[in-house]
Formats: sequence, structure tokens, C-alpha cells
Amino acid sequence: MLRRRWVALALAAVPLASRGVQAQSDVLPSWNDGAPKKAILDFVARATTAGSPDFIPVPERIATFDNDGTLWSEQPVYFQFAFAMDRVKALAAQHPEWKDKEPFKSVLAGDMAGLAATGQKGLLEIVAATHAGQTTEEFRKAVEDWIATARHPRFGRPYNELVYQPMLELLAFLRANQFKTFIVSGGGVEFMRPWAEKTYGIPPEQVVGSSIVTKFELRDGKPVLVKEPKVEFVDDGPGKPVGINRFIGRRPVFAFGNSDGDQQMLEYTAGGPGLRFMGIVHHTDGAREFAYDRQSHIGKLDKALDEAAQRKWTVVDMKTDWNTIYPFEKK
Amino acid sequence: MLRRRWVALALAAVPLASRGVQAQSDVLPSWNDGAPKKAILDFVARATTAGSPDFIPVPERIATFDNDGTLWSEQPVYFQFAFAMDRVKALAAQHPEWKDKEPFKSVLAGDMAGLAATGQKGLLEIVAATHAGQTTEEFRKAVEDWIATARHPRFGRPYNELVYQPMLELLAFLRANQFKTFIVSGGGVEFMRPWAEKTYGIPPEQVVGSSIVTKFELRDGKPVLVKEPKVEFVDDGPGKPVGINRFIGRRPVFAFGNSDGDQQMLEYTAGGPGLRFMGIVHHTDGAREFAYDRQSHIGKLDKALDEAAQRKWTVVDMKTDWNTIYPFEKK
Repeated sequence: MLRRRWVALALAAVPLASRGVQAQSDVLPSWNDGAPKKAILDFVARATTAGSPDFIPVPERIATFDNDGTLWSEQPVYFQFAFAMDRVKALAAQHPEWKDKEPFKSVLAGDMAGLAATGQKGLLEIVAATHAGQTTEEFRKAVEDWIATARHPRFGRPYNELVYQPMLELLAFLRANQFKTFIVSGGGVEFMRPWAEKTYGIPPEQVVGSSIVTKFELRDGKPVLVKEPKVEFVDDGPGKPVGINRFIGRRPVFAFGNSDGDQQMLEYTAGGPGLRFMGIVHHTDGAREFAYDRQSHIGKLDKALDEAAQRKWTVVDMKTDWNTIYPFEKK
Repeated sequence: MLRRRWVALALAAVPLASRGVQAQSDVLPSWNDGAPKKAILDFVARATTAGSPDFIPVPERIATFDNDGTLWSEQPVYFQFAFAMDRVKALAAQHPEWKDKEPFKSVLAGDMAGLAATGQKGLLEIVAATHAGQTTEEFRKAVEDWIATARHPRFGRPYNELVYQPMLELLAFLRANQFKTFIVSGGGVEFMRPWAEKTYGIPPEQVVGSSIVTKFELRDGKPVLVKEPKVEFVDDGPGKPVGINRFIGRRPVFAFGNSDGDQQMLEYTAGGPGLRFMGIVHHTDGAREFAYDRQSHIGKLDKALDEAAQRKWTVVDMKTDWNTIYPFEKK
């Protein structure tokens, strides 16, 4: 006990801004030394130093992260597409009309490019069509079963193992500094919630995403919520600040994305007063992960990359800035 | 230090279920001894006793509270009505058509009963009409100004002093036992968030309510959210379980309401597995607060009162169960 107290006293003599970096072991071991790691450490040190002009009170420490391509991979198709495709195939016999109707046609033909071209809208149509009539609890079970059994075509692993180790470290580091971490994703909120807590330490009530309409019903006297075949909200592009305001009710001080769909979230974050952090994951590592940006159907990063350069937002070059991509590489 | 340790050791010998009640000073001092207080203490003791069959893991400890009539008063009109009326009067000169159109007509004529009859829908129409074109930040400022300056017609106090002291104690008690407390209200989410944290200790991201559509825009190059004259979501009646699922993503284990608008939230809470608590505030004290139930335009409590009796939900009789109503009574 005494010993610990001495350490605390000794630490008190070290300037606060440098303490986090010097006194602890490396809190972001999968990040190579470089501008992004330095920017993150500097931001957190300044935000949490009492009396500093950049100090951010704890309730305002709201950090929002895109999911697809920011916290986990999104190639060769958004993982929720893979889930939805499995559902379409299972239900196709009951829907002969799907053979000639997009986005179902592409799914059944195995046409990945055609499917990707239908974008978030196509995904939501598939989700709406395949999940209508299910209760939210039935849907959650379907997601849990799929996460447990499906395997990524390239890596042969469960999809929720294809999360970025450096981002897991960043989430933990922010939470250790009393930031509240949220997902703000174009993906379906009910697709993410069943596994986000275990995978990222982010509870359901801190997951913001796209949704389809649900309706309260009594089924056999039991109160349930039933999914309807109607898109309710698309949490992408300009929908992200809208979703943040609706669900969180505060402007974030820290945001991370990877595509043009995150541009407005980053702008909205940048638009508030005081210290801010805006980050973009740039997929530059075709060997360890995937390399894509301006021309990609999935996770297109074009306008936001230009804006990041212009406004000096932090851009992570996966190839040079991350020494580890996936947690399983460390085993 | 040693002394505290001895107390802890001594406490460890007391059965956990009774410890909360016996060892601490009264955690709910404004609640008279009676069935509701006992039901609350028993519920929390059972939910938090490790190894008990009723134990609820911390992440599942979701408690939802209606606001109007459950956490603060709602008479002679919903407080947000009073706010909206002040806005309508200020803007009436720009809208000559309002003289003949409900709900504006009733507002301008000072016809409280007519206004109340338009219900949540009328309220939302007024909010939509009077706030369209405002940014969310302008709106927040308008709410903050109103809360600071407006006074309740009967009590002559700021509206956010008309909160129920027993419920403040209950919120604090639940949080001390690692429950996460949420508001789930038919009122406008952006009307509640500016003052809910200071008043109830409930942060913006734990406030669920009705909303109007907002749109992301750049105004003079600044990213803002602008309110549109369109109702987006009515978080009342069957909308409450829908809102809970959308915003929280978990079924509550504890819910408190006061009107038929809370019935589905209570049913949804009751419908999950394991230990549950469903509570209703019954407004029976016309002398200290207001007395109303089955016949009231505002906060009508009829079907839910029958269901509560039938299903043995906890019904709080304000007159007999609460020795204090408002915090200012104690001064």
C-alpha cells in the first residue's frame, strides 16, 4: 500500500500531459510510432489534463466509431451482406420473383459486384425482405447463430475475429480515460448489437445504426416486437450526424471512420468548439488485409480523403501505422 | 481505515438480501413504509445478490422511467405544452392562419381543455410548427432559457423543481446498485435532454422520447442539424417498447410509469424472463400535487390501472406512500 502511494506521489511530479505515455507501458502496442499514434496520445493527454485549456469534462467525452472498415473488415462484401445472402438463399424457394429482382437477383446469381453496386440500400432491402415477420428476439438468435458458424471466405475465421487489434486497443484506451465509446454505423443496428458487447466492449445502448420498422404486438399473449418490411432509418452519410443527435444527443469530440459515408460524421465532430479528433482508416495493406479507396464500391474513400488532407485530420495508413491487423495474428 | 474494514467484515456476515435495508441509513427516506417501498427494496436486494436465482447481471440492469407524471408533474398541462404555448404566442403574428386551426387555435384562445384534448399529437404538431428551421442548438438554447425563466402557474417555481423527491431517491438508489437509468417519455427528446442530466442525473444518451425530423446541413460552412416540420417518432403507448428496442436494444427489468401511455412499456418489461419490477405512480394527492386518473385528458390512467391490479404490479398511492412530494418541501 505504502509503495503504491509513493509511486503516485512520484507520478504527481511528472507533467500530466506526458504521464500517460511515459509512466505506463505502451497502451497502443499494435500502433507503430508515427503521426497517428502521436495524435491520439496527445489528444487524450490534453483532453484529460485538468486545468488545461483543452480539458474536456467527462460527460462530453463522446467518441463515435464507424464499424465496417473502421473496427472490422468489410471485404470482399460488407459482412452483413454475407449474412443477408445466406438468408436470401435459405428463403429463395418461397420467393420465385427474386430471380429477376435486384438486389436478390445478384445474390442468387452469386454476382458480388452487382450486389455491392446496390450499396447500403440494397442491403437494407434484403434485410427488410428476409426478416419481415420475425420478432427482434428471433432475429437476434439468427445473428448469433450466423456469427457462431459462418466463416470469412479468405481468412476462414468467424467474422467477428476480423476486427482490428489496434482499434480494440484504442477503444480500451479511450474508455480507461473516461470516454464513452459508441458505434455509429450504416450497418443494421440489430445486426451489430448481439455481438458488439463481447467483441468491442460496446453495449447495445451505445450502438447506433440503420434500422427497419418494428411494431409492438401481443403474440400468444406475449409482448414482442415484430420487424416490418420497411426501412426506417439509414445511418449513413448525412444520416450519421442525424443518428448521433437522435441517439446520443451530444456532438462527439472524437470520431473515426474510413469512407465517404463517414464524412458528415467527421465534419459534424469537427464543427464543435474546443479540442477535437477526426480520424480515418485508410486501407492500404492488400497483403495483410485489403487495399482499396477511391474506386471501391465498398467503403469508397474519395471526398473524405481529400477533406482529411485539407483539414489535417488524422489518416491511418494501415500498412505502415499498424504492426498487427487482427487479434489472431498475435497467437 | 481499520474501522471501515471491520464494518465491512461485520456486514459480510449479514445475509445480503437484508443488508441494503438494515445496514445503511434509509435509502428512500421520502417513501413511507408500505408495500411499494418494500417491493422496491426487495427487488433490488434480490436482483443484486450474487448466487441468488433472481440475480441480474449488471449489463442487464436496465431501468426505464416515463417522465411526465412519473418523474415530474404534468398538470394543469404537460410542461412541454406550456413551453410550446409560449413559443406559439411569440410566433403568432407571423401565422395568421393559426387563429382557426387546432391545436394553435386553443393555444391562442387560452383554451386549456381544448388543447389538452389534442394530446401528444397536438403537442408534436406545435413543436414541429414552431421549431421548423431552427438548428438543434438554437432549440436547446430556447429550452434552457425557458426552464430558467418560466414559472408553474400553481407553485410559482421553475418547472424542473416540480420533480418528485421520492423518484430522485429511487433513481439514485438504483444507480448505486449498478442499474442504468433511462427516461422513456412521450415528450420531445430534445425538450428533455437540456435539463435531464442536472435534474435527474440522466445523461442525454439515456433519454428516449418523441422526435421530429432533423436534417444535416452546412450553414455558412458550419455543420448543423436543422429541425423540419415533420413528426418522426411518437414514443408513447406501443411506441414505447419500439423506442426502447431502437435506442436501448435491451428489454428493461424495471419500469415505472403513471398512465395508459406506459401500459405497453410495462407489459414489455413484464414479458421478459426472470425477476421484473413494474411500477405505476397513482396521482391521489390533490392537496400536495394533483388528483386524477381514469377521466383525465392528461396522464389518463385507466386500462393500465386495471392491468396493474390484475397482474400485481406495484401501484404507488402518492398520498399515503410518499411523505414528501417535491424537493422544495424539505427546505
